[in-house]
Amino acid sequence: MSTKHTVVVIGGGPAGMTAASRVKRLKPEYRVVVFEKSKYVSYAACGIPYYIGGHVDSIEKLVHYPARFFREKRGIEVYTETAVTDIDDETVYAISKDGETIRVSWDTLVIATGARPKKPPINGVDLEGVLTLRILEDAERARRLVSSAEKVAVIGGGYIGVEVAENLARLGKKVTIIEMLPHIMPTLDEDMAEFIEKELRENGVEVKTGEKVVEIAGKDKAEKVVTEKSSYSVDLVFLAVGVEPDVNLAEKLSLEKGYAGAVKVDKRLRTSMENVYAAGDVAETFNIVTGKPDWIPLATTANKMGYVAGSNVVGRSIEFPGVVGTAITKAFRLGIARTGLTEKQARKHGYDPISALVTTKTRPGYYPGGKNIHVKVIADRGSGKLLGAQAVGEENVLARINAFASLLFKGATVTDLFFDDLAYAPPFSTVWDPLVISARILMRKLL
Amino acid sequence: MSTKHTVVVIGGGPAGMTAASRVKRLKPEYRVVVFEKSKYVSYAACGIPYYIGGHVDSIEKLVHYPARFFREKRGIEVYTETAVTDIDDETVYAISKDGETIRVSWDTLVIATGARPKKPPINGVDLEGVLTLRILEDAERARRLVSSAEKVAVIGGGYIGVEVAENLARLGKKVTIIEMLPHIMPTLDEDMAEFIEKELRENGVEVKTGEKVVEIAGKDKAEKVVTEKSSYSVDLVFLAVGVEPDVNLAEKLSLEKGYAGAVKVDKRLRTSMENVYAAGDVAETFNIVTGKPDWIPLATTANKMGYVAGSNVVGRSIEFPGVVGTAITKAFRLGIARTGLTEKQARKHGYDPISALVTTKTRPGYYPGGKNIHVKVIADRGSGKLLGAQAVGEENVLARINAFASLLFKGATVTDLFFDDLAYAPPFSTVWDPLVISARILMRKLL
Repeated sequence: MSTKHTVVVIGGGPAGMTAASRVKRLKPEYRVVVFEKSKYVSYAACGIPYYIGGHVDSIEKLVHYPARFFREKRGIEVYTETAVTDIDDETVYAISKDGETIRVSWDTLVIATGARPKKPPINGVDLEGVLTLRILEDAERARRLVSSAEKVAVIGGGYIGVEVAENLARLGKKVTIIEMLPHIMPTLDEDMAEFIEKELRENGVEVKTGEKVVEIAGKDKAEKVVTEKSSYSVDLVFLAVGVEPDVNLAEKLSLEKGYAGAVKVDKRLRTSMENVYAAGDVAETFNIVTGKPDWIPLATTANKMGYVAGSNVVGRSIEFPGVVGTAITKAFRLGIARTGLTEKQARKHGYDPISALVTTKTRPGYYPGGKNIHVKVIADRGSGKLLGAQAVGEENVLARINAFASLLFKGATVTDLFFDDLAYAPPFSTVWDPLVISARILMRKLL
Repeated sequence: MSTKHTVVVIGGGPAGMTAASRVKRLKPEYRVVVFEKSKYVSYAACGIPYYIGGHVDSIEKLVHYPARFFREKRGIEVYTETAVTDIDDETVYAISKDGETIRVSWDTLVIATGARPKKPPINGVDLEGVLTLRILEDAERARRLVSSAEKVAVIGGGYIGVEVAENLARLGKKVTIIEMLPHIMPTLDEDMAEFIEKELRENGVEVKTGEKVVEIAGKDKAEKVVTEKSSYSVDLVFLAVGVEPDVNLAEKLSLEKGYAGAVKVDKRLRTSMENVYAAGDVAETFNIVTGKPDWIPLATTANKMGYVAGSNVVGRSIEFPGVVGTAITKAFRLGIARTGLTEKQARKHGYDPISALVTTKTRPGYYPGGKNIHVKVIADRGSGKLLGAQAVGEENVLARINAFASLLFKGATVTDLFFDDLAYAPPFSTVWDPLVISARILMRKLL
């Protein structure tokens, strides 16, 4: 047995590999071991829908760095296709694809097991031809099956559902999104989600909202998706009804759980057990807007949590301040972005929200090539505190959401948004940025 | 004489028309008079280079709203082609294009006379064929003269110089930018300016730096630009060596001057004289990063200052917090943006700056269509306070500069930048945003 200080990282996704790299960088003398149950580490799960759609040609391109890189260049012991089977106070037990048992005594543990797709509690979710997407092997399988499919149902109209639907429609498939809520994209307000539904429909995607799936029927494979209202004949079904923290291994150590059942962590990403950290989608996070714990599993956050966990593992005290809830995706021509709270969420958190929805062009009328953009801003009536923003448009939604997210991150107000010194030149924006117009409208609604 | 409270606004640009509109909106019973010496009010001076280049087909398109709109829809008395000749404690004196004298007794005055192009103190600047750009009539004249010109010199490599050069080169003209400093775009650091020089040269623009113009020679019209090093045969010369506040009329009232000779104002945009406000390019502003007065004449700022001045005129107390110095332009494929202080400026203001320059793609390697982007971030070594950023790239510079400007506006640190919750999805950005990578680098350089 090695007498080196040993850090074991469980999970080779963004949080795990960043944590492992950070530890090894700061403490080259430590032994750092990573266990990953799939074939790949450091992979871009966010690229999976685009791989399925053929935008990304080979699966290897979705791997930022291969396991070999971490072994040879960073001196990290990486075990792929090796599933951790048990953990106790002293040892991590894993089993390789060849059935070999591996035992490593740990001094510090980083749980980075990520999130897993939820399965709705209905019949047929385990039929052949019903797919979920998590790891690259799922993507490879999906791409194979898609090639011979014609009619595809996507159950769930969130980010993954919309991304998969767009990619399949581009391949010429007949795609139906089935969402049980009144609108798709529930992390946006309904008035904003409507723009996306319109775009999807205009591009040939059937969007069925307010329809709950009750069963996936079929003999040997999925043949029909049955909802409360109708039924759809299908060749393939994607389940995209959300994810949940993958806490199977965290439960072996009886780690305390927090928001949404994710592993409870403090700002240094320490769990309830000494020398055990959790980072990435498996761990709870903190919402800077509400001031409360939250769970928003995203790759950027996972990378930063990995950095923070890795730093704290070696005693470099650094706190993860939390997130404001920024996310972006696209559907055909539309960029779709959000940050902070929706109007609905704001109400749920006890705010008295005011909002402004501005539809404008991305360039002055005289400058050619301007596209449509819709920006919605939400603030608290009493305090003027900014609460959230959503942007949907054909150009520069990233600029609006990143500016707004930065203000939210610093606890800014409507007045700050009005006076924020945003860039202007005719090829890039209107002289009154839609965010600033929103602020001007909101200033009149403040108490 | 009217007994109504009379507000006279001098200058019909963004600041003037916004102030006038704001006053009339809040106090419809006030008499609001605007004097504008050119033919147009509410015009987009920023669009002039693109009009010259034929990107904008008619001059009317550069007018956001015609004078008639303000008269008929907003009840503002607008006098165009009417030059104010004198002002005293009680009366504004103006003369119309027909030679008619107009006298208006004022209760409140808003000086919004803007900025005017500087002329270098050399021979030949008043020759035929030497142009400056300020009002739309200048643009019309320039477009006419450009059509028959072949060789054009642009003296000065700032925003206007670069924009004019790009537009003329696109028309097939032989364009030479002559800049006396070692690099063009002096509001950027030299390492960033080099990317722009390269882009200009690759697109056929000659860029001569470190060359001081000593004379524009010619008999009846400009024929040659003579520098300390060389001379250039020309058909047309654009002078773009900067602007200065147009304080001619402000001087009639002996208003106190501040930074760069601009009219000194407080945060409510009150000048040194009671009931006299100044807004837009004629007025000084406040730099939030340095905490000192500054002068950064830009259209967005002018609009907001007009809004603030108009509000205060009617007793709605509102303060203009200042700017962080954000600006953006383009040169061929490159977006060019900056905010805050350059490394050089930071040193001049007594900071001990650290910087990181990150060159990356705008999308992950696996996602098609990624472009190059260069991002430079400057911070203070001791405090970690963010000081400035520059972005040059083919895509999404607006997103980076707006995010950074928002953080600067709120006095953020390098750690804030690292943890800022910026949006990520493969079609829009890399999982580690170049701003966040910069922050990660800077964290290692902090004291």
